[in-house]
Parts: sequence; structure tokens; C-alpha cells
Amino acid sequence: MILEPILIDGGWESADSPVGSFQSVNPALKASLPEAYPVSSLKDVERALAAAHQAVEQLPALPVGVIADFLDRFAENIEADKAALVETAHTETALPREPRLASVELPRTTDQLRQAARAVRDRSWCMATIDTRTNIRSKYAPLGAPVAVFGPNNFPFAFNSCAGGDFAAAVAAGNPVIAKANTGHPGTTRLFAEAARKAIQASGLPRAMVQLIYRLRPDDGFRFVAHPLLGATGFTGSRAAGLKLKAAAESAGKPVYLEMGSLNPVIILPGALEERMDQVVDEFFNSCTTGVGQLCTKPGLIVLLDDARGREFCGKASRFFEEGASGVLLGEDGPQNLAAAIETMTSHGAEPLVGGSSFDAPGYSFQNSLLQVSGGSFLANSGPLQTEAFGPVSLVVKARDEDELVKIVEKIEGNLTGCVYSHSAGKDDEFYNRIEPLLRRRVGRLLNDKMPTGVAVSPAMNHGGPYPATGHPGFTAVGIPASMLRFAALHCYDNVRKHRLPMELQDKNPTGQMWRSIDREWTQGDI
Amino acid sequence: MILEPILIDGGWESADSPVGSFQSVNPALKASLPEAYPVSSLKDVERALAAAHQAVEQLPALPVGVIADFLDRFAENIEADKAALVETAHTETALPREPRLASVELPRTTDQLRQAARAVRDRSWCMATIDTRTNIRSKYAPLGAPVAVFGPNNFPFAFNSCAGGDFAAAVAAGNPVIAKANTGHPGTTRLFAEAARKAIQASGLPRAMVQLIYRLRPDDGFRFVAHPLLGATGFTGSRAAGLKLKAAAESAGKPVYLEMGSLNPVIILPGALEERMDQVVDEFFNSCTTGVGQLCTKPGLIVLLDDARGREFCGKASRFFEEGASGVLLGEDGPQNLAAAIETMTSHGAEPLVGGSSFDAPGYSFQNSLLQVSGGSFLANSGPLQTEAFGPVSLVVKARDEDELVKIVEKIEGNLTGCVYSHSAGKDDEFYNRIEPLLRRRVGRLLNDKMPTGVAVSPAMNHGGPYPATGHPGFTAVGIPASMLRFAALHCYDNVRKHRLPMELQDKNPTGQMWRSIDREWTQGDI
Repeated sequence: MILEPILIDGGWESADSPVGSFQSVNPALKASLPEAYPVSSLKDVERALAAAHQAVEQLPALPVGVIADFLDRFAENIEADKAALVETAHTETALPREPRLASVELPRTTDQLRQAARAVRDRSWCMATIDTRTNIRSKYAPLGAPVAVFGPNNFPFAFNSCAGGDFAAAVAAGNPVIAKANTGHPGTTRLFAEAARKAIQASGLPRAMVQLIYRLRPDDGFRFVAHPLLGATGFTGSRAAGLKLKAAAESAGKPVYLEMGSLNPVIILPGALEERMDQVVDEFFNSCTTGVGQLCTKPGLIVLLDDARGREFCGKASRFFEEGASGVLLGEDGPQNLAAAIETMTSHGAEPLVGGSSFDAPGYSFQNSLLQVSGGSFLANSGPLQTEAFGPVSLVVKARDEDELVKIVEKIEGNLTGCVYSHSAGKDDEFYNRIEPLLRRRVGRLLNDKMPTGVAVSPAMNHGGPYPATGHPGFTAVGIPASMLRFAALHCYDNVRKHRLPMELQDKNPTGQMWRSIDREWTQGDI
Repeated sequence: MILEPILIDGGWESADSPVGSFQSVNPALKASLPEAYPVSSLKDVERALAAAHQAVEQLPALPVGVIADFLDRFAENIEADKAALVETAHTETALPREPRLASVELPRTTDQLRQAARAVRDRSWCMATIDTRTNIRSKYAPLGAPVAVFGPNNFPFAFNSCAGGDFAAAVAAGNPVIAKANTGHPGTTRLFAEAARKAIQASGLPRAMVQLIYRLRPDDGFRFVAHPLLGATGFTGSRAAGLKLKAAAESAGKPVYLEMGSLNPVIILPGALEERMDQVVDEFFNSCTTGVGQLCTKPGLIVLLDDARGREFCGKASRFFEEGASGVLLGEDGPQNLAAAIETMTSHGAEPLVGGSSFDAPGYSFQNSLLQVSGGSFLANSGPLQTEAFGPVSLVVKARDEDELVKIVEKIEGNLTGCVYSHSAGKDDEFYNRIEPLLRRRVGRLLNDKMPTGVAVSPAMNHGGPYPATGHPGFTAVGIPASMLRFAALHCYDNVRKHRLPMELQDKNPTGQMWRSIDREWTQGDI
């Protein structure tokens, strides 16, 4: 069997002593695709790390504009290759070509790369801080070692390990990336890697700035993230895999940034249902089933009062779930994982209102599923009832009264997002004020009157949150420039001679535009 | 035996079911002090955590000015209690009353608390970021859970778990602190806790904002930092203890910030010795022996060329070490720990030039010690030869030539600081340029022509660095406001109604002075 080559040090090379192979699967047809990809041995990891270290040696001598040029060219190459990318991603993931892949996710991806390019040119991301009294100066700088990126299955473009948010952040911060493809879309990732390779050549970046391997055995993955030559890891995926990588990386003192899934609780206060029941039901259903529910910010937990309107909400939502079309899941594990999650919930008191099973179809499928549980059962089994079901599934928790609803919120684990819907004229405000402080510290992004799906690439975004949604409550995986700080080290210069300072810390502002904190004042000026 | 009480929820209370007791020792006399302190059981930890959570519930409703008032009053109370603090710390640590304790460390401590108070009032620390186009707003906020602070033995004031840098940063960021006293100076810490308790009462902060326990069995310490009710941990101390706490905290997903020691390599290029040999020797000796060498930034590793001037440097430095007075070490473990570290070095090729032993004296003592090793031996045993000797001890590595010196720098582990001394007129600049990128990524603070001791409390300071000097390369333990970010969570508000936004994210600038990033521009203005 001929195995697809991996990208090492600027060249497409055969894997060295692969330990296996795999094919990706067209989930719409449950059919293996023809290409076979290697499961790399640690030899490939070591080759990539060694090459990346040569890039690390070369980078300080290059003007930062070269990285920005690369990011812009890469975005252009992606656009030029759009047809093939969309077709390949559609085949590997069953996500719709339009609007999702071609008109939503691809433009988001290139926009993110261009935002990263602007951040590199602007340089304000590095938070240059100068204390003229002591002549101490500091800024964030590249890690001085490559970054490993493990991308998720659900965004073959925007979170791709070789083109997505972690990739853009790590490269823009000045680090070589070693991408580990998601095994659900290796062909898509290969196209990105080739587009990156060409952009590297054209921009003059070191060849090993972007490298690609497809798969590792779990133990080799742990060795990779703990390797002495690695700088840090960005991971988006399941909690089970994430926690194992976390333990491996941290035991070696390596930073690891994880986005591990989230239930994204939505608290619907009675006034919102009194005022705009149908709108809330509609927004909930759409948010829960967009992308066949396979979004990290899908609302998987609804909390409301078990009163007449709360029950009416369940009834109306059930009809939406019943009647709504259900799409094809990303992979063959989808149906069984969903069934297992639902089994965990039902064996702890949850009751299916709609759906709950996979069904016979050409592609991997699962019914739109809505479950409910009493507040009492939730409080008694809040751990298992917070099992993530990565698909079009949500659990409604019906609280007996306001006090029980508050207790339910107090049991919510760390999440990426939390929403509160409330009456627009303030009827729920007292109740909101009881809930907000409790929910606030459990989530990274707090929303009002809006479902959590749709993560804007904004400098104010936080796509992060408390453990176990992520591994650290202070960092975001989305949003330029904040996401870049994950892949940076704080570099301080104390009494360093002026001509030896990096450009960003010299007396003269290097661009005339860069924001710096000089003696505690943010300024674009010189010293 | 009557055990000193611990500070729980605003009151001095008996330890609940203590599992042992300890006394501190006057190191100048090798004599136990009369007071006995409890080794707390987990019950005290649980009491403190529960009380701290009540404080967490109360804090959001308080104006931030209350925290600032507390910090200022605490600084005043410390000044009012200066005589007792200095006397107690002198008795417990043998550090000189003057100038060290009374005129250097105490003013540094109160200045740090007042800087923290100013940061609280100024609010710019929270990095408010507003994107008006998407109406997404974010800022750093308290963790919503208390912070555990474990202080080191060597700065009874400035790094005290109940008054020092981690304490000030955690409180200023809005978190209750549970201080675990360093067992070398429990009496000093108790005085701080009492001064804090009074300041809490006067300012109106929740009673449990500051609590104190003295000691835990190691396993209970691990349970403490991993406890579900804990937010994060700040630790300053030995690598051995730090790594164990790190593993415990991280296995539970709890952030832990560690400052675990450092060799602080100083690379002395030939031009510096040609130009100002005596000055460099003098600076080195003073930096190495200040505080009896028990500083986290003590220069413990000197790298220079094995040429006539390099050897002259060793000879001159040896005379300083030989003739210089040696002070009293902080504790009874000091002499044996130093002897063990030196034994590790000598058994891997290092040769003592001066000292190397403890000696008979009324207090815990160790000779000023200088060792040397060839570059070749260092390269062959770079691990053991980078053993920290926490005392007046340094190792000179003599490189055969420039290439070997470069290889030595490539073997240096992560450190807090790294210095390069070079010729002032540029004679060494080519050599400097070879070394700088290698050293830069191994250290948090890079210095020129200046020894690393003396860590200014500056907004541009980085008292941090790559693992294993710390647990994360992106954070500093010293410097307001940057050190506060360790004890903060990123809070994003998406479509949250304006009147529900925290003050710092409302359209109107809450102080007219606070710096905010609005649509990528830093401004003190309103929206």
C-alpha cells in the first residue's frame, strides 16, 4: 500500500518506519476513501522537531514582515485552492459545501489568517512594556521552540491544525508549527499544508515553519507533547484525549492549551418565555442542530422553571426536534458516542422527549434528541448528567422553583459559554442578579438573549473558560491578538544596551503605530 | 503544649485536630523559639476554603475601592508594626535588621502593597477589551475562588505568603488568600496576618479575605492545591517541593504558579575582563553573597573563556570569597543542603577553589564557596552541574574557546535570569550576537553588564522564565500589574445588556483614567 507522504522540512517525504496506516471515511456514504495515510513513528516526530529547531535558529534574523507575508500569501493560496478544499472537506466530513464550507468557514479561515498577518505587522500583540525609570523593558516573544497543533474534527478549515485558529496564533507569535492532522480530514489538511509550503517558499520563511504528520499512536502523542524540543501544544477535541495529553505535557513542564468540550448552559428565565416563547424555541433549536450539533458551543443544557411555560417550551421544542431534518455526523464514532452519552443521562434520571437513537441511513446519523430531567434528579446526579453529547442533543433541566434553579446553576461545571434569556423590560432582573455571579465564574463567555454558537473572531472574544472546558481560565483559543499570547514567552530586558534591544523595545516606536505601555501609559509614541 | 492559633474567617482560632506541631528556630543561635505552631489537618484547610467561598460570594457587590483601601491600610499597619516585624523576622531568619529588613525589605513590601492598591483603583490591569462592531467585551476578573500562597524562606517580608508579591497580586486581582506560612518564619507571618485582619475590619472587606495556616503534611498540601474549592496556587520555593505541588494541582486542573529556583548564568565575555576585571569580580562577589547567597537570582553559574584573563578572574574572585565574611544561613537544613549540592558538583568534575564546607559557629554557617569546572566536563554532566546550591556558592565554567562556550550556553536549563558582560566599546559584539539568541530563550530576564540580584518591582519586570525555573514561561511573579494576571480569569460578555456589564466594560470609562482597548486602540476615553 502506498502511503501519502508527510511534510517535513519543506518537502513531502515518506514516513520513516510508519507503525500503521489509516484511511479517512466519507461519512455520507460510510465508505473509506482511497488514500492511505501513515501512522507515524516517533522518528517522524523527531525529524520534524529537529527541522523546526533549525527554523527557530533562523527566525530571529528575519524581519517580522516575512511572517505576515506568509500568512497573507497562505490566505491567497487557500482562496485559489478553494474548489479542491471545499470538495475534499465535503467528502471527508459531509459538511455542506454551501453555505457552510465555501461561504462561511473558508472565508472565516482566511480572514483569521489575515487578522494574524495584521497583528504581526502591527506588533501591538507583544504588549511591549517599558519602565524608563529603571530601564527595564519587556514584551512577549516566540517560545523559541515549535508548537504542536492538534485540530478537532468539526471545523476542517477554521480549526484545522494546519490553517485554523491555533495554527494562525502560533505562527503569528513567531513559532514553527508541527501540525497533527485530525484523522477525520487528512486530505483537507494535506491541501492546506501544500498551500502553506508554497507560501513559505514565496515569502522566504524557513522551510520547517509548517510541517505535517497525520497520526500517532497515543503513547507517541504523549511523547510528542512532552518532548524536550517542543515549546507548547494547542489541542481541540474530546475531554478524554485532552486530559491525557495535558498530563503528559505538564509532567514535562510543557504548556498545553486545551479546548475540551462544553455543555454551554442556557438559563431561560420565566419572563423570556412569557414575552417571546416562540422566538426562544426557534433560536434554541437552530443553535442546537447547526452543524448537526457538533459545535463546541452547542447549547447542550437548558435550565428553566418547571411551570406551565417551561413545560410549553419543552413541548414546542420537542416538535422542532421531531420535525427538523437531521444531517450526517462527522464520523463513524458519532452514533455510538451519542447513544452512550444518552444512555449515561437516561440511567441517571433523564427522560427522552424526542429521539435518542441512531437510524438507518446512507450516512452516519442520529435523531435530533431532546431529553428532560427534574431539578432534583439533576442535583443528585449532576456529574453524569453533564456528559457532553457531541451532536444534535440537548438536556432540559426543569427546576421546581427559583431556589432549586439557583442550586442547579451552582452545580454547573466549567464551560466555554453560559447564556441567560430574560424579559426585555426587566421583569426577571432580580432573578438574573441572583444567577449571574454564579454562572459568571463558571464560564468563559457570558451571553444575554442569544445562543452561544457563532464564535466571532474578535479581539474581545473569549473562546475559553474554566476547567474542564479548557486547561486554564486565562486564555482564549479564538480572537487575534489575545490567542497569540498562549504561544509566547515573556522576555524582559534589564539594562540591555539600546542597540541590542529588539525593535519593539527600542526608544523609537518601530512602526509609529505600535501600542506600547511606557511608564504605565499606552502610547504609539517614541520615548 | 499550647499551640498558636490559626486565622480562620477573621478570627484567631485553635487548629482543629492538628496532626503535629513545630517550633521555628533562631538560626543565629541554633535554638528553638518558644512558640509552638500547629501542623494543620485537612479540617483547617476545609474550614478556610468554606469561609473563603463566602467571601467570594460577597466580593462582587463591593466597590473595588474597598480592596484598595485594605491594601493601603495593611501597608500602614505594617509600618506601625515595623519594630516587632523586624525583630521577629531577625530572630527567625538571622537576616540583618539593618539595612536588610528595616530599610530594604519592609519598604519594598509596603511599596508593593501600595502599588497593588493603585492598580486596583486604576483598573487598567484588567485589560478591558471592547469590540463595538460585535458588542463583545472582555476583561480579566477574579478567579471566583480563593488563592493558596506558599511563600519561601528567604524573604520573610517581600515574598511572605501573607504580605508579599503573590499575596498582593492575588488580593489585588480580587481573590481571597489562604496563606500557608513558611515554617522558617511563622511568627513573622502571624504578625502580618494580624495586621491584615485589622485592615480587613477597618476597610469592610469580607472577614475571610485573608486566612493563615502554618503547616501541612505534604499529602495534605497536595490535597489543598487540588481542592475543588481552590482557585489557584502561588508557590515560591525549592524545585523538589514545587514539582510535587505542580503535579497535584495540575492533575485537578488547578492553575499553579511556581518559582522554583534558578542558577542565573552570567556569561562574561573576554572584553569585559580586559576592560574592567576588578569591577566585574567585585560585582560578582557581592551579588553572590548578598543575603548569604540565598536569593532566587543569585549568580550560581559563571561562564567564561579559559584564557589568562579568565583564570585571573578565578584567582581574584577566589580571594574575595576567601576573605569575605560569611553570614548565617536561614535554617538548619542550609549547611547540609549546600554540602550535598557541592558534592553533586564535585562528583561530576567540579573542583573547589575556595570553601566547600560548613564550619563551626554559633549559627548555621557555610563557607563562601567558589568551584570551577572545565567546559568539557560541564558538557558531559550538564544536568548535575546545574544543581542549585542555595547559599554563597557559585560554579565557574571555563570554556576552551568560543565554540565551546556557545555549546555550554546551549546546555543551560530554563532560568529566571541570564546576564552577559561585554566590552563597552563593542569588542565582544560579534560573540554577543552568537550567544544572545541562545541565552534569550532560556531565561525570563536578560541583563547586560549587571548582576541579576535586585528584582525591581516594575511593571516591566519579569521574575519568571522557562521551565524548570517556573511552571509557565508567560507569567511574572514580580511587578504590578502583570503579576496579577496569574490570579485572574478571562471574562467575556457577548450581547450582555449594558446595565448588567461590569463597570469596566460599560460605555463610559469608569474612572476617566482607566486604559481600555476599544476597537484595537488603547484609550482612556468613553465609547
